[in-house]
Amino acid sequence: MSKVKAYAAHEAGGELKPFEYEVGVLGADEVEINVHYCGICHSDLSMIDNEWGMTQYPIVPGHEVSGEIISLGENVKHLKVGQMVGLGWYSKSCMTCDACMDGDHNLCASAEGTIVGRPGGFGDKIRCHWSWAIPLPDGFEVEKAGPLFCGGITVFNPIKQCNIKPTSRVGVIGIGGLGHMALQFLNKWGCHVTAFTSTDTKAVEALTFGAHEIINSRDEKALEAAAGTLDFLLVTVNVTLNWNLYLNILKPKGRLHFVGAVLEPVAVPAFSLITAQRSVSGSPLGSPATTAEMLRFCQHHNLVPQTEVFPMSKINEAIEHLKAGNARYRIVLKNDF
Amino acid sequence: MSKVKAYAAHEAGGELKPFEYEVGVLGADEVEINVHYCGICHSDLSMIDNEWGMTQYPIVPGHEVSGEIISLGENVKHLKVGQMVGLGWYSKSCMTCDACMDGDHNLCASAEGTIVGRPGGFGDKIRCHWSWAIPLPDGFEVEKAGPLFCGGITVFNPIKQCNIKPTSRVGVIGIGGLGHMALQFLNKWGCHVTAFTSTDTKAVEALTFGAHEIINSRDEKALEAAAGTLDFLLVTVNVTLNWNLYLNILKPKGRLHFVGAVLEPVAVPAFSLITAQRSVSGSPLGSPATTAEMLRFCQHHNLVPQTEVFPMSKINEAIEHLKAGNARYRIVLKNDF
Repeated sequence: MSKVKAYAAHEAGGELKPFEYEVGVLGADEVEINVHYCGICHSDLSMIDNEWGMTQYPIVPGHEVSGEIISLGENVKHLKVGQMVGLGWYSKSCMTCDACMDGDHNLCASAEGTIVGRPGGFGDKIRCHWSWAIPLPDGFEVEKAGPLFCGGITVFNPIKQCNIKPTSRVGVIGIGGLGHMALQFLNKWGCHVTAFTSTDTKAVEALTFGAHEIINSRDEKALEAAAGTLDFLLVTVNVTLNWNLYLNILKPKGRLHFVGAVLEPVAVPAFSLITAQRSVSGSPLGSPATTAEMLRFCQHHNLVPQTEVFPMSKINEAIEHLKAGNARYRIVLKNDF
Repeated sequence: MSKVKAYAAHEAGGELKPFEYEVGVLGADEVEINVHYCGICHSDLSMIDNEWGMTQYPIVPGHEVSGEIISLGENVKHLKVGQMVGLGWYSKSCMTCDACMDGDHNLCASAEGTIVGRPGGFGDKIRCHWSWAIPLPDGFEVEKAGPLFCGGITVFNPIKQCNIKPTSRVGVIGIGGLGHMALQFLNKWGCHVTAFTSTDTKAVEALTFGAHEIINSRDEKALEAAAGTLDFLLVTVNVTLNWNLYLNILKPKGRLHFVGAVLEPVAVPAFSLITAQRSVSGSPLGSPATTAEMLRFCQHHNLVPQTEVFPMSKINEAIEHLKAGNARYRIVLKNDF
């Protein structure tokens, strides 16, 4: 038995407090990681607040881990102690179902969420199944890596899954932790990129991340004027917008794609889908293989999230900073246990 | 100037009455067709009743024409007088926009609807742009051909557009004019096909059209039991069902596809799309090239719609038969002017 030092919330909306838990013998297929950094994601807040009705308290949030392997289960032969890895939303897949066998471990019906019913990355150590401990490419900046494992892969995955082409004209709705990475990816993918934001300062910065054009996401006249111009719209916000206007921005065969967990159902007029052969879709984080592909793409193009680092002991301040909408663009906690 | 004899409605919900209109010189890119048969589609009823707010009265409905070319405009060199052709929902595309130049004449923003602001096929003659007069393969049964040009292509097109594979497990919701053709197409496409209907007699017949399995479309327990089993669900009905239950029938990466013009917006929970990478989409009728492809597929596999023939002079009886839900499965009017 050994102890893990962490931070946990004990009730919905509660402050995070120091919390220790014991772990037993490392499983044969498990990896133990010394957390160097862990990003804070909006879904950590949703889980702390039990917005999705699946939180078990006490909860140790945190699912954007970057760190060093300190121990390996006896079956794990392809990783090494001392190797730098990342860990995101998923920490285990069954490895035998159709989805897993097809390389879609992220779509495994029994995939385990890193902070769902198990302790996450706001601690000094974390364990996971080997499949989800993804090695960082040699020389990859560890401080910047964490946010790629949730925010980053969440927006990289649809670019691959939706078969976005370099000739596609695309838009990103919401320029935050996810959106600012989506702009970078899509720009290097070769696309013409439009950023949709209602925050003036973000509009300026969006251009530096790779947007070629900015539209105010709440200016209905501007949205109407953009009708029929884009092939793909990536929704990274989790609030309800005027989806009809956004559907109309799509060209024939265009797609409105959700990665932000909008709680209210999206009301889609069948007519708008039928007449221009449009689609509305969504996707979760990518598979381990797609995550590795993203890391290589980042290294090749020198892409990293823009981060602000807080010591993990200042976790509540960091959360307030995020809640206030001030994060530019992803907050990363540095393990200072 | 010459006269066309036809049947027209003069007000929303009105009976069809004999109606004559004059036509001038045939346009250089136009084709004039002697209507042999014309199918009746639900969208004829919607247009007669001005359900979509775009009807101009008097309206001559009818957009499932099969017949013989009797005259050609001077620019039309690839067709011949005496040749048998079909004409569906579209009768003209601009031929120069991106969609047209890409082969998607059905997605042309200025495509002309055969019964939208111009007289349709419930008459002795009809005219259209050459692009939408699609030749029937040699020996194709003219009496059966008409319904393929709207009902048929509406369900064939998504099989192609959505990249359905012979290994896909698919479902068809609603077994009527469209659905009974979808079952035939999908069966010959190689798929495992489930028919969803709430009509007992149709359930039995669905098996003869190619369904391998039947589920009662209104039995919520049966729908729940089918969770996670299908890759593709084709919605041919135009009423609101419990779409959430149908979304859950989809496997990861599955698609719920609308060709029925459901008037109420479809309420889609983003979570259901995101977690299993699902999509909701729609499509109109296919392009001229896809229509020709469908006709060859039909001929190769000996597929035809199951029709009931009424003389065109009995048009109001035929419409009542359709409205009563008694059509098995597509009504075709024979020109008896």
